[in-house]
Amino acid sequence: MISAIALPGVPDVRAGDDLAALLAEAAGRAGGFRPGDVLCVAHKVISKAEGRVMQLADVTPGDRARALAAQWDKDARKLQVVLDEAAEVLRADEGRLICRTRHGFVCANAGVDASNAGGEDLVVLLPLDPDASARALRAALGVAVVVTDSFGRPWRVGQAEIAIGCAGLTPIDDWRGRTDAHGRELHATLVAVADQAASAADLARGKDSAEPAVIVRGLERFVVDEDGPGAAALVRPREQDLFG
Amino acid sequence: MISAIALPGVPDVRAGDDLAALLAEAAGRAGGFRPGDVLCVAHKVISKAEGRVMQLADVTPGDRARALAAQWDKDARKLQVVLDEAAEVLRADEGRLICRTRHGFVCANAGVDASNAGGEDLVVLLPLDPDASARALRAALGVAVVVTDSFGRPWRVGQAEIAIGCAGLTPIDDWRGRTDAHGRELHATLVAVADQAASAADLARGKDSAEPAVIVRGLERFVVDEDGPGAAALVRPREQDLFG
Repeated sequence: MISAIALPGVPDVRAGDDLAALLAEAAGRAGGFRPGDVLCVAHKVISKAEGRVMQLADVTPGDRARALAAQWDKDARKLQVVLDEAAEVLRADEGRLICRTRHGFVCANAGVDASNAGGEDLVVLLPLDPDASARALRAALGVAVVVTDSFGRPWRVGQAEIAIGCAGLTPIDDWRGRTDAHGRELHATLVAVADQAASAADLARGKDSAEPAVIVRGLERFVVDEDGPGAAALVRPREQDLFG
Repeated sequence: MISAIALPGVPDVRAGDDLAALLAEAAGRAGGFRPGDVLCVAHKVISKAEGRVMQLADVTPGDRARALAAQWDKDARKLQVVLDEAAEVLRADEGRLICRTRHGFVCANAGVDASNAGGEDLVVLLPLDPDASARALRAALGVAVVVTDSFGRPWRVGQAEIAIGCAGLTPIDDWRGRTDAHGRELHATLVAVADQAASAADLARGKDSAEPAVIVRGLERFVVDEDGPGAAALVRPREQDLFG
């Protein structure tokens, strides 16, 4: 059995706040962590604690951002932040840029987001190294940590929460060479455990509930003693991508 | 709080079996359904009950299947089944065909799969109309139903379980026009609830555990009195696809 329990009372986080302490307090109010717990944390509170927030008033848009903004009637300063965060722009449409980030994630606006940023003039960026963020929280809290964000998907409507950082949890359950319930060898089965944990966690809260952290319980079989390869292991090398 | 409970003791299913009765029995052993439950069912047992299984000995491969099979050293009969199930082949590589199915799903081998098929010579196809399958189970069992399959994703390693059929559950939680925790209006937030429920369910079992059905509890706010639009609502119209 799997359960996902949103932690109550995580306050609004600001740059320099001790996020681990705030999460430990919130977990305490929910009965505390148990061995084998996986803590899924929406990246926004991590980004805020790490100072990965931009004030649009501080941004001077360049030519490309101003041209795109004029074309799509968008804020050129926000587009400049997106361009700065993007390693590559794959597509542009109606002011939304589908980008590959420096981490290798492909997502809308390179992960730059104004929702739940905390002010009309603010945008939140992705953490510089979400796996490192996960490792730091794991070291402080003593539980496996998944850093999450909601990504759009090709061919599907709506966003699903996925893992952009991970420590102490096997991100991928590799069944290749193992057998199915009928003893037949599996050849292509790799389960994206950390992504599915992120999605399960997301069901336990609302977009307005101010509950960035969710304990997912029942994944003991995927919890390991080391930090492990992180969510970087979930980024498919470009030359292997058959879908994209 | 969300919980996902795999139902024990669902036997191997054959064409014509009363799947609803088998699932009701299994649910009974787990304490029975509760109001607001969502039953996630791996499509394979549904396909089997509906007779959507092919014996490769019965398949005569055509020219294209034989050419692909020769090129990639694969079974031409299985490739013929894939080609028959595909509305469109988007990519081909090493004998894996990325296809758009008649339902509009984009997935490997048009959903044709030999794992857990029950015999070396058997492949399982997707249900002809997985939303109709979900509606039929909902009518028989009195709970919301999600029909699931594991799909590969562009740019990501590993598969995640998604909803290919749905009845009685809001497939998409549309936050557009509603506000975040700071009162700021959300413009692009649509949560793929049914896909995330499928992923949560998948965490509660293994690929060899013979547990095709999982109760997901705690989604009452998305459970509705009607069948609703089904998982068809999760298929993005091709002309709107910015990612793909």
